Amino acid sequence: MPKIVNHEERREQLAEAVWRIIRREGLEGVSVRSVAEEAGMSLGSLRHYFDSQSALLAFSMQLVAERIKKRIQSLPQDGDPRENIEALIGQIVPLDEDRLAESQIWIAFSTFALTEPELRPLSREIHDSLRDVFRNIFETLAQSQLLKPGLDTELEAKRFHALVDGLLVHGVIASEVVLAEEIAGIVARHLDSLLVP
Amino acid sequence: MPKIVNHEERREQLAEAVWRIIRREGLEGVSVRSVAEEAGMSLGSLRHYFDSQSALLAFSMQLVAERIKKRIQSLPQDGDPRENIEALIGQIVPLDEDRLAESQIWIAFSTFALTEPELRPLSREIHDSLRDVFRNIFETLAQSQLLKPGLDTELEAKRFHALVDGLLVHGVIASEVVLAEEIAGIVARHLDSLLVP
Repeated sequence: MPKIVNHEERREQLAEAVWRIIRREGLEGVSVRSVAEEAGMSLGSLRHYFDSQSALLAFSMQLVAERIKKRIQSLPQDGDPRENIEALIGQIVPLDEDRLAESQIWIAFSTFALTEPELRPLSREIHDSLRDVFRNIFETLAQSQLLKPGLDTELEAKRFHALVDGLLVHGVIASEVVLAEEIAGIVARHLDSLLVP
Repeated sequence: MPKIVNHEERREQLAEAVWRIIRREGLEGVSVRSVAEEAGMSLGSLRHYFDSQSALLAFSMQLVAERIKKRIQSLPQDGDPRENIEALIGQIVPLDEDRLAESQIWIAFSTFALTEPELRPLSREIHDSLRDVFRNIFETLAQSQLLKPGLDTELEAKRFHALVDGLLVHGVIASEVVLAEEIAGIVARHLDSLLVP
């Protein structure tokens, strides 16, 4: 009886293999060959799923983005608006090993995309969709009249986005010293500066 | 008559060759071979200066750090404290092509260092020395009584540092849309939120 292979499941297994390689060796270790080996699959079978290294990397980055999106969508929305925002940001910044790995992949992918024209649209798409998350935060806050008066919501969305990505980078490049509590404390301080008491 | 070669000058020429390759192909394009070719030098002569790819990259990153440091040190110190800070931040964030290239090299180097244990000490050193720059800013502001009351200067130094590195990353990965004026505007808004009017 032939083995029934779930196509989507197999793609995800391959993406998991890519992540393990990235965490161990960096993006430069990712090749169609190394991923086939890591996933215990033949080169021919792998090429059936991804015909280039760029396609493989793009898929892995998309999976990271989807995971984060799913976590954000499953957050309860009925609590205190400020706590909702902190919970949302907590899904993006490296507060634990899993989110640290996602952050490393995002940074590595973004860097790789700088010199890979094929990957730039996805890199920009991810940047832009996170920008929209921050715009939504400030629109919701403004509608609920929780923002201090006189704030430029578009500018504040960009400022908060830059702060969060900066914390993400610091969490990755100085992970021994930039601790999770520190990141959470800086986000809390930033929100204090923006919201009415 | 033998050609007199200035050792330091030659090292700088090599670093310039590394920068050109990084901007064109990314860090993955940098090898002892490609740098020798770019600099029009034999492989043997190059190995006289740098015996590994890591040594070459570390030197290039150090040169970027030194350039930024020199620009900061040559800034006038006698003006308005707020303008001094804006001028200082302007030496770090990608406001023009040169500083965009430096930012690209910093991001690429920091990413590369994640999987190259040899490069991690330098990566951390650069992170820590920039952290000190931000600590100094807030100590000076506190001494001049320019800070709004009740601020935690250590936390504010970390927050400003994360914001600036986030702007730097955005300037690099979304350079077509995150414009220099936007970066300057966000820095100005951040300072407004911290300083007494």
